Amino acid sequence: MKIYDRAGFPNPARIRIVLAAKGLDASIEFVPVDLIGAEHKQPAYLSKNPSGVVPLLELDDGTLISESTAITEYLDNLDGNPVLTGRTPKEKAVIHMMQRRAEAYVTDPVGLYFHHATPGLGDALKAFKSPEWEGRVMMGEREGEKVRNGLKYFDELLSKQPYLAGEDFSMADITLFAGLMHADVSGITVPPEYSSLRQWRERVSGLPSVKNRTGQNLLPEDLKRLGF
Amino acid sequence: MKIYDRAGFPNPARIRIVLAAKGLDASIEFVPVDLIGAEHKQPAYLSKNPSGVVPLLELDDGTLISESTAITEYLDNLDGNPVLTGRTPKEKAVIHMMQRRAEAYVTDPVGLYFHHATPGLGDALKAFKSPEWEGRVMMGEREGEKVRNGLKYFDELLSKQPYLAGEDFSMADITLFAGLMHADVSGITVPPEYSSLRQWRERVSGLPSVKNRTGQNLLPEDLKRLGF
Repeated sequence: MKIYDRAGFPNPARIRIVLAAKGLDASIEFVPVDLIGAEHKQPAYLSKNPSGVVPLLELDDGTLISESTAITEYLDNLDGNPVLTGRTPKEKAVIHMMQRRAEAYVTDPVGLYFHHATPGLGDALKAFKSPEWEGRVMMGEREGEKVRNGLKYFDELLSKQPYLAGEDFSMADITLFAGLMHADVSGITVPPEYSSLRQWRERVSGLPSVKNRTGQNLLPEDLKRLGF
Repeated sequence: MKIYDRAGFPNPARIRIVLAAKGLDASIEFVPVDLIGAEHKQPAYLSKNPSGVVPLLELDDGTLISESTAITEYLDNLDGNPVLTGRTPKEKAVIHMMQRRAEAYVTDPVGLYFHHATPGLGDALKAFKSPEWEGRVMMGEREGEKVRNGLKYFDELLSKQPYLAGEDFSMADITLFAGLMHADVSGITVPPEYSSLRQWRERVSGLPSVKNRTGQNLLPEDLKRLGF
């Protein structure tokens, strides 16, 4: 199996956490994609993934799987014990619901905020990010407000349970964790009074599958070059 | 089990198709939600689903499941034969990928187009749909363009295979089918030259689980009252 991605970016981090959690690190070859140079918006990459995003999984039979959640479904089910996406109908339902909330409340609006209310990934990529909106900070601000509401929601939820879907770490936590990584580089911080959310983040950061996947990779050199 | 929804709307239709496909119609009680009156944006409903959208599934033990994909996961897995969301790791991956593409390329931008470039659901709901953007048809137009690109993508895909995930009808087809329902009331039509997409829609419309769920419910009286 091959993963097309870029170390240090939020969505690639989701899959790297899944690979570590499932003990699959050794069976994967990573193919780096130059996100700063907009390689993922060029025809060669778009022919593999028309959505023009990373990560992308290529199976040994050539099948291409995009979308972090779909890649997670695949990797999590390989051993017949899908602890990250749910083993029973109810587990699956709650995990998929909370995963979607983490995306809709935090990860997606953080991405829009990053590209509209901050310098984003720089000039090469700007042409692919709705140029007619350039400078329209209002959109970014609205998305920033959504993120702040989302952080409040998850802080309240996590005051009642250790993980987003209940007692166990799941795909939903991975999505929110990646969203907070992206929030960091976008200048959105978790307010100090959101102690449940902060404690959850500490707890997740300390999990073996997450701990092994973070560190210096989280802020790659080119992100630093762009001023983050 | 209870479903909070409103007959004739696109996301409720997704779950009604799933219920029919799984033979679960008889085990469900439907609780109507007044979408035109913005009942889904009021505290009573938000306490059940903070996302403020329908459909919402309530299990007999009181567990609340929102998000159409999460509800589909639940219902599809109850009999241990998840034909709509995938039985093998690869089936699951492809279905989840294509479901997400149907959402991202068609269903989501159709929803934004509907609320920004058309009168949407009317005045009661307008306050909950980013009032600072009122009249900004540009956003609607951008989303409309996304939809047209999405229709082209799916037309090409469906010239090579009968359903979005390959040989079999799945959750991905249900999402796109609902997106096209919403496109209809938004005034976006499938171009005549997209014959593969049109033939797919005919094929899906004729499936027993879909045929039983469409018809007069597709355009409820109150939508008609709003001028659609």
